[in-house]
Amino acid sequence: MARLKTSEVWRKARKARLAARAAARLDSQTKNKILLSMADYLEQGLAVVLKANAQDVMAARPRLPASLLDRLILNERRVKVMADGLRAVAKLPDPNKRLVERIKRPNRLRIEKITVPLGVIALIYEARPNVTADAAGLCLKAGSAVILRGGSDAARSNQVIVRILRKALRANNAPEDIVQSIETTSRRAVTELLNLRGYVDLLIPRGGAGLIQKVVAESSLPVLETGTGNCHVYVDEYADVRKAVRITVNAKCQRPSVCNAAESLLVHQKIAARFFGALKMDEVLFYACPRARRYLPQARPAREADYAREYLDLAMSVKIVDSLDEAIEHIYRYGTKHTETIVTENKQNAEKFLREIDAAAVMVNASTRFTDGGEFGFGCEIGISTQKLHARGPLGLRELMSYKYLVRGQGQVRA
Amino acid sequence: MARLKTSEVWRKARKARLAARAAARLDSQTKNKILLSMADYLEQGLAVVLKANAQDVMAARPRLPASLLDRLILNERRVKVMADGLRAVAKLPDPNKRLVERIKRPNRLRIEKITVPLGVIALIYEARPNVTADAAGLCLKAGSAVILRGGSDAARSNQVIVRILRKALRANNAPEDIVQSIETTSRRAVTELLNLRGYVDLLIPRGGAGLIQKVVAESSLPVLETGTGNCHVYVDEYADVRKAVRITVNAKCQRPSVCNAAESLLVHQKIAARFFGALKMDEVLFYACPRARRYLPQARPAREADYAREYLDLAMSVKIVDSLDEAIEHIYRYGTKHTETIVTENKQNAEKFLREIDAAAVMVNASTRFTDGGEFGFGCEIGISTQKLHARGPLGLRELMSYKYLVRGQGQVRA
Repeated sequence: MARLKTSEVWRKARKARLAARAAARLDSQTKNKILLSMADYLEQGLAVVLKANAQDVMAARPRLPASLLDRLILNERRVKVMADGLRAVAKLPDPNKRLVERIKRPNRLRIEKITVPLGVIALIYEARPNVTADAAGLCLKAGSAVILRGGSDAARSNQVIVRILRKALRANNAPEDIVQSIETTSRRAVTELLNLRGYVDLLIPRGGAGLIQKVVAESSLPVLETGTGNCHVYVDEYADVRKAVRITVNAKCQRPSVCNAAESLLVHQKIAARFFGALKMDEVLFYACPRARRYLPQARPAREADYAREYLDLAMSVKIVDSLDEAIEHIYRYGTKHTETIVTENKQNAEKFLREIDAAAVMVNASTRFTDGGEFGFGCEIGISTQKLHARGPLGLRELMSYKYLVRGQGQVRA
Repeated sequence: MARLKTSEVWRKARKARLAARAAARLDSQTKNKILLSMADYLEQGLAVVLKANAQDVMAARPRLPASLLDRLILNERRVKVMADGLRAVAKLPDPNKRLVERIKRPNRLRIEKITVPLGVIALIYEARPNVTADAAGLCLKAGSAVILRGGSDAARSNQVIVRILRKALRANNAPEDIVQSIETTSRRAVTELLNLRGYVDLLIPRGGAGLIQKVVAESSLPVLETGTGNCHVYVDEYADVRKAVRITVNAKCQRPSVCNAAESLLVHQKIAARFFGALKMDEVLFYACPRARRYLPQARPAREADYAREYLDLAMSVKIVDSLDEAIEHIYRYGTKHTETIVTENKQNAEKFLREIDAAAVMVNASTRFTDGGEFGFGCEIGISTQKLHARGPLGLRELMSYKYLVRGQGQVRA
C-alpha cells in the first residue's frame, strides 16, 4: 500500500469520500432539516460572519477592484439572502433515487435506471462567500459531499460560514465531514485538489477564464466547465425594432458582469438605420465595424479580437451583417456556445437560427439574461455549463446527479 | 492569430471540426443510407481488407500474445459481422433532435430541451480493426464527426477500412471528413490528440488500464473512462445454490477477457460448504482467503492486492464473508463501480444490495456479463463507462448525444 498522504487536501478528501456514503443515504426529510438548520444558524451567527467578512474586506480593499470587492462584501441583507437560498433548496424535490427509465428484456431481466448522487463534488471559486453556502446546500440536497476551495480573499468569511454549516450537520446527527473546505492557500493545495483521482467525482471551477483554463489543463478529474459567455444578440431584418432595442439593452446593461450578459451585437443591414435610430445606450462603449460606426460615431473601431472578447462590462462589439447566414457564421466563429438570441418576427428565420446555432441556449425574442437556473424553473443553480458533456446550460440539482442501473433476474446467464 | 499548426493531427482535427457541422445536419435517411453503403462497400472490399490485415498480423505475430493477436485478426466472417453491425445501427432510431423536456415559464417563455450531437468524438483504442467500423458508424448515426486512433499494430487494416468508410460518405454526397483517422504512430501524435481543446468534444479511450490512466492524466479534453471492471459475484446466505453456481461460472468463464466478466467471488460462510460442494470450476485459478482454501485446496493464498486485480483471464479472487454488510464493504473497498451481483432469494438482502452498492450496474440473480449495450436493449455500444459524469454503464447512441435549450419568447427581458 502507498504511504498515506497527510496534507490538508488529502486528509479532507478521505473524510469527504467517507462522508459521501452517509450523504447518499440521508433521506429527504433529514436533508431538508439540515438545510433549514444551516439557514437558521447562519442568521443567528450574523455578527460573527460579518466580523470575519469585515476583516477579509479590509485586507482585500487595497488590491481588489471595486467589482470584485463588491462580491466579497457581506451585510445583513446578503446573509439573509444566503439563508433564504438554503431554505429554497429545502423546498425543492429530492433529485435522488428518481426512476429515469424502466426496461424489460425478452429474457425477463427487469432493468431500472435510477438517479444516484455523484459522490464527492469539488468546487473551486472566487472570493464570493455566498457561493460557499449555496454550493454546500445544493451538494447536500444532491446527496453528495462537497470540498470547497474559495478564493483566499474570502478565507475568513468562508471559514466562519463552513463552521456554521458543519454545526448544522452535527445538530441533525449527520456527519459534519459532508462539508469540507480547504484552507491552505498555497498553489500546491490547488494542484493536489486538481488531482484527487478516486476521491472526487466532479470538479466545478467557477470564475474567470484563467481559472477555468488552468483547471482544465492541469486536472485529471472529471470537470464541468462553467461560465464563459460571449453571448450574441442578432437583430434580424424582420425584427420588431422596439423588442430589439429592449432586448439589446437588457442583455447588455441589466447586469454586465455576468456570463449571460450579451457581449456582441449583430444587426442586419436592412434594419440598421431604424434600429440604431431607436437605440439609446450612451453608457456602453462599442467596438464597431466600419458600417456600424456610421450609426455609432462614438464607437471605437473593432479589431478582430474584439469580436471574441467577453467584456463583462458596459462594452460590446457591434457588426452589421448582410444576411442571417452571415450572422450564424459570425456566431460560429466567435461564440462560446453559451447563449445566442435572434430578434425577429420571421418564423422561418427564427427556426433556422434555433436549428443551426450550437449553444447551450438558443433564443428567439428573449434576452440572453434568461439562461439561469432560476429563470429556467430549476429553483437554483451552481453555475452554467459551457461544455457539451454531462450537462449544458444551467446546472441545477438534477445536473448534479449520476445514475445507476438496477438489474433484477431469476438466475439468468449469458448464452 | 496564432500560427496554424500543420501536423497530421491538427490538420485532421480542423477538418473534423468543419465536417461536424455537416454531420449534425444530415437527416436520418441520409445517415442510414451511408451506413448501408459502408456495410456494402466493406463486404465488396473484403479481399483488400483481408490482404492489409494479413500484413498487420504477420508483422505483429512475433510481438503480440495470442489473445491480442486474436483481436487483430479479420476473416470473411468477421468482416461480415462488421458490415452487419453497421446495418444494425442503420435500423436504430435517430438519437438526434429528440424532445427531452418542455418547460413553460410564468413569463410565457417556452423552453424546449432537445438532443443535439456532441460534435467531434475522438476514440483511442487498441489494435482491433472491427472497432474502427463500429465506432465510425455509431458516431455518424449520433450526428458527430469522429477522429479514430487505433493501435499501430492494426494500422494497415484501419487505413483500408477508413478508406472504404470515407468512400461510402462520398458516394452519398456527404463530406468524407466526417471520418478521420490518425495514421502517425508517434507518441507526439497522441499527445497532440489528447490536447485538441476546442476541436474535440469527447474523447473515449478504450483499452487497458494503462492507456486509460495515461489519457486521464494527460488530456485536457472531456473524457469518458471505459472498461475497468473488477466485478464481484456475492453468494448470499439465502442463495439458491444452483443459480449461484450457474451465475458464477457464467460470469467468470463465458468470456474471461472482457470487462464485465467477474473477477472476485464473495461467499457467505453459512452457505460456503454447499456452494463450493456444487461448484465445478477446475479450469479457474483461485486466489482465496484462508477459509475459502478449505473448500478450494488447489487455490493460491490471496494477498490483499489479489482482491483488487482485474484478471481478464480464468483466474479469480475468493473470500468468505460473515455478513452481507461485510460483502458490501469488501466491494466498496476493492470494486471499480462497474457491475456487482448478489445471488439471493431473500428480498430484503437483494434490495439492500441494490440500494447500497455504488456501481454502474447492480444486479440480483443475474450474471455480471449482462452489462452490455446489446443486452440492455440499446442495440449497440461504443464501450462501458465506469465514471459517474455524463454516462454510466453501456454507452449506446443516446449516451453519445448532448442537448440544447430552445427558448421562444415574445420580447421578454429580465426585470
